[in-house]
Amino acid sequence: MCGIVGYIGESQAAPILLDGLSKLEYRGYDSAGVAVYSEDKILMAKSRGRLKVLKELTHDGEMLQGTVGIGHTRWATHGSPSDVNAHPHFNREESIVVVHNGIIENYLKLKKKLEKKGYVFVSETDTEVIAHLLDYYYKGNPLEAVTKIMHRMEGSYALGIIFKEHPTELYAVRKDSPLIVGKTKDGHILASDVPAVLKYTRDVVFIENEEIVRMTKEDMEFYTVDEEPIQKATTHIEWDVNAAEKGGYEHFMLKEMYEQPKAIADTFSPRLKNGEIIIEELGMSPEEIRQVEKIMIVACGSASHVGHTAKYIFEDMARIPVEVDVASEFRYRNPILNDRTVVVVISQSGETADTLAALREAKKQGARVLGIVNVVGSSIAREADNVMYTWAGPEIAVATTKAYSAQLTAVYLLAMKFAYERNEISREMLSELIDELKALPIQVEMLLNNQGKIQKFANRYLAAKNIFFIGRGIDYAISMEGSLKLKEISYIHSEAYAAGELKHGTISLVEEGTLVVSLVTQKELYKKIMSNMEEVRTRGAFVMGVTLEGNLEAEKSADYTVYIPETSPYFTNSLAIIPLQLFAYYIAVGRGCDVDKPRNLAKSVTVE
Amino acid sequence: MCGIVGYIGESQAAPILLDGLSKLEYRGYDSAGVAVYSEDKILMAKSRGRLKVLKELTHDGEMLQGTVGIGHTRWATHGSPSDVNAHPHFNREESIVVVHNGIIENYLKLKKKLEKKGYVFVSETDTEVIAHLLDYYYKGNPLEAVTKIMHRMEGSYALGIIFKEHPTELYAVRKDSPLIVGKTKDGHILASDVPAVLKYTRDVVFIENEEIVRMTKEDMEFYTVDEEPIQKATTHIEWDVNAAEKGGYEHFMLKEMYEQPKAIADTFSPRLKNGEIIIEELGMSPEEIRQVEKIMIVACGSASHVGHTAKYIFEDMARIPVEVDVASEFRYRNPILNDRTVVVVISQSGETADTLAALREAKKQGARVLGIVNVVGSSIAREADNVMYTWAGPEIAVATTKAYSAQLTAVYLLAMKFAYERNEISREMLSELIDELKALPIQVEMLLNNQGKIQKFANRYLAAKNIFFIGRGIDYAISMEGSLKLKEISYIHSEAYAAGELKHGTISLVEEGTLVVSLVTQKELYKKIMSNMEEVRTRGAFVMGVTLEGNLEAEKSADYTVYIPETSPYFTNSLAIIPLQLFAYYIAVGRGCDVDKPRNLAKSVTVE
Repeated sequence: MCGIVGYIGESQAAPILLDGLSKLEYRGYDSAGVAVYSEDKILMAKSRGRLKVLKELTHDGEMLQGTVGIGHTRWATHGSPSDVNAHPHFNREESIVVVHNGIIENYLKLKKKLEKKGYVFVSETDTEVIAHLLDYYYKGNPLEAVTKIMHRMEGSYALGIIFKEHPTELYAVRKDSPLIVGKTKDGHILASDVPAVLKYTRDVVFIENEEIVRMTKEDMEFYTVDEEPIQKATTHIEWDVNAAEKGGYEHFMLKEMYEQPKAIADTFSPRLKNGEIIIEELGMSPEEIRQVEKIMIVACGSASHVGHTAKYIFEDMARIPVEVDVASEFRYRNPILNDRTVVVVISQSGETADTLAALREAKKQGARVLGIVNVVGSSIAREADNVMYTWAGPEIAVATTKAYSAQLTAVYLLAMKFAYERNEISREMLSELIDELKALPIQVEMLLNNQGKIQKFANRYLAAKNIFFIGRGIDYAISMEGSLKLKEISYIHSEAYAAGELKHGTISLVEEGTLVVSLVTQKELYKKIMSNMEEVRTRGAFVMGVTLEGNLEAEKSADYTVYIPETSPYFTNSLAIIPLQLFAYYIAVGRGCDVDKPRNLAKSVTVE
Repeated sequence: MCGIVGYIGESQAAPILLDGLSKLEYRGYDSAGVAVYSEDKILMAKSRGRLKVLKELTHDGEMLQGTVGIGHTRWATHGSPSDVNAHPHFNREESIVVVHNGIIENYLKLKKKLEKKGYVFVSETDTEVIAHLLDYYYKGNPLEAVTKIMHRMEGSYALGIIFKEHPTELYAVRKDSPLIVGKTKDGHILASDVPAVLKYTRDVVFIENEEIVRMTKEDMEFYTVDEEPIQKATTHIEWDVNAAEKGGYEHFMLKEMYEQPKAIADTFSPRLKNGEIIIEELGMSPEEIRQVEKIMIVACGSASHVGHTAKYIFEDMARIPVEVDVASEFRYRNPILNDRTVVVVISQSGETADTLAALREAKKQGARVLGIVNVVGSSIAREADNVMYTWAGPEIAVATTKAYSAQLTAVYLLAMKFAYERNEISREMLSELIDELKALPIQVEMLLNNQGKIQKFANRYLAAKNIFFIGRGIDYAISMEGSLKLKEISYIHSEAYAAGELKHGTISLVEEGTLVVSLVTQKELYKKIMSNMEEVRTRGAFVMGVTLEGNLEAEKSADYTVYIPETSPYFTNSLAIIPLQLFAYYIAVGRGCDVDKPRNLAKSVTVE
């Protein structure tokens, strides 16, 4: 994913770049680097490891004097995390320097071609190809060189580029990787994402695909790939900077877990009016809602688990067939869509590369696309036909919690709206569901306050090698999310299984003492799931059951039981996820893992 | 799953029971037991562990003299594998004895009720409830007692029952668990499955749901649950008994892997006539094929992976939307079907409990059901509207190989048939595909003969803790199957991932030396998957690539490369699975695992 920044103006560039990178570290933290133009040469500093290494190395930027520069924080795709593979990258003469977010897919072909022409490569990255390619095509006009390489590169990229011969200019370009630019008090700034610039400006321009920007101290000029000038509009950002601070919690993840009651309430409150669900941004008339023949939900990671939950609810409550697909598969499998299909794309950042590409594929095929997105003004928010925002606020921890909960709330609202407009549920049923929905924030808070018990239990499993999560129906969807949470922050190999499917192979992994977490929130499936719990216990598993208050029967089939309050069967995921998040969190803390920034991961996945 | 047998006649019962059980061991092998009526009492012998323990214990049955008896081999569901939990189970006076295959779901409620009436339970099983329940309702008329308990039990069961007061009778009953009966030269025999009776008879009667049979030495009488007599037809079985022997191979699994070329050829050959695909059993006119609006594939385990492969092929080649669901989920989630939906259920045994229940649910909702089944005359074969047999022959190893390959072949034929009749592919294209299909057996054989290389590679990973399989598109489907094969027989926790989805969480599990197996058989996705391979290598993974001959580029992104011959992009799964099966097999052999009978598993999963 990587994050890039750039600055040109009257201030010293390096401190601004380092500060911007610190806000982008969620995008990758394998290595970092900055380059600054300084008295007829370009100075560069880069290093493997977290940003703080680079800060020490450069004395917080003081070593690099100059007022134009670019910076990078890396999530490695080609070439291992190392000093030499860190960005920025130079051409041989060190007269052109570039930072890159994305993947150049034809880099091997380009590399071979350049090697034939005598270029020598020092790193294993795809990015170094860009520097040499610019060198090859640069004949004095930077804009010309930039457009020439754009025609020759395949893949995705956001680039920041400095040419030594044009020290009063900073170039940037975007294709399928996010990029924003803005005016500061004494110059201009560019970055992969809004948080990096908030300290300097709240008015930003979103660069679109295949657009180029030439920045100077005084001006920003925008061009197409054919070097034609274009005009761009400015967007004002309302975000609260302080929301991105830890506020006394040990980790962002813990803080964000405790913000879930608010995230849920903020997502449903503005949409409940006089006992009805009003989703203004939906932009669909009741007639259009009734004409929908199929819903296709496309997302990645946790957002795709929201999709699985949504499938159960939409099919059962609104009787609309729903298909869920991970975005990286959807976009390449020639999906069958038509104008009666609504494609729902779900993404916290609104920049997830695969999801964005899926959105474009769906639009091309004539489907209506609805985005469920957390970041206002993000690429998905801008390109979807309609957008429904989750009001979770900025999420910093890599492992999503409050954005996930807000996404669940959004799909509840959508399903209820669709079911009601299609006469699949009565007004009384709708009212009951709304009442249950309104109770969720306080119920979630209750569960969060019970964290001591889960922490104690988690401490018993710090050394676990394998953990399984099982559930049936909508409980299977929450099993997937519980398993992913644990996996991503604790590095314990856990896996979710439809409870009835476990015996078709995977049960062979269960041995004496294996922890199996079983979700038991659907009354009509109690007996079935309890049979599956018996099957694994019989083979030595220790079973933790998560069930509804009052289901004392569960204690017969579980070795340890956690209770969640009663709610509508459609909404149990919102409650059951809380003990699972707490469990994953305390396991990771107990194992000494870097909870907010787990190894190998990045918050916003802007490469394929 | 469990297997049950019973005999009544002029011969000694115990040797016949033990022999029958040896043919049913694939259904479970946690414990075994037999009971025989002998001079005014019922003798019983049972033991934890494999059948051979019981054979030793009873001196091959000699200890139990008598000509009427029942036997059982167990796959534990309620209560751990132990002597006391082994079947058969007695009532307190030891005057009624029962063996049971299935799960009594309301056993806790029934147990409580019986305990209140003074019954004392010695085992943890659900089956013991049946013995006491029979005792409670038995007033001198066995048939009456049997029907009474049937009205009170929920769940699934095949039962064999002997009443001491009626020593010339043997009772059996079935609900949602398979049961067959047949006439031998000097009496009658019952069993869960055909192989157990083949030595004694080839003419069998399939007992249907809620039917009861009363067997004597001379006769068999059939009754409904209302005690009304019914007539039943006899089916002649053509199977070759010798096909179920190892024939020089170390394991059935290895033998069956080597039978794959034949299984594939036997499945397509009878259906290719004069350049056309003729599937007589399909029972659908070209007009009906054109009217299909949706295909729903329902299966469990490996058969569901065939479903995932089928989805890619059907959607791309025939442009029919396909949904794949595991049977245990499908049956409880209120699926949306109509008379333009074809539900395809896939099962080797044709007895998979969840799949059978899904079939019934689909029929109830008015969908047409097509079964793809290996065992002729099995429950699914009999209940589906139409059945397409895979001609793989008997499969004994728990981990499926040749039945899986035959299932793939069956769905290729179906997809080609549908695509051609719906004018989505030309006659030329059909001919080309048929030519590629015909080449598969020889290509598979070639890959099998290359096993030495895979064995050597496998030996390096005997101590692996976690292994990942990644692929995009149809390669993802084969990743799932490769991962399951490894998991079920080697007990290494492996997991399959859509290659583009790995970075949304699970990549955090990749560390120095983690083996990642990457499937690279789809030319238009080469670059994309190779980017994903770079991502994991960059984080220390060792990458094994499986790709098409000629794709030397793959060696740049893989540490070890296995080549498969060129074929249609639709058929690559049939080739790519071979090295993955070999890899799983040699890992399991190297780790000293019981390849043919992995722990906790059974061949035919006839419980939910």
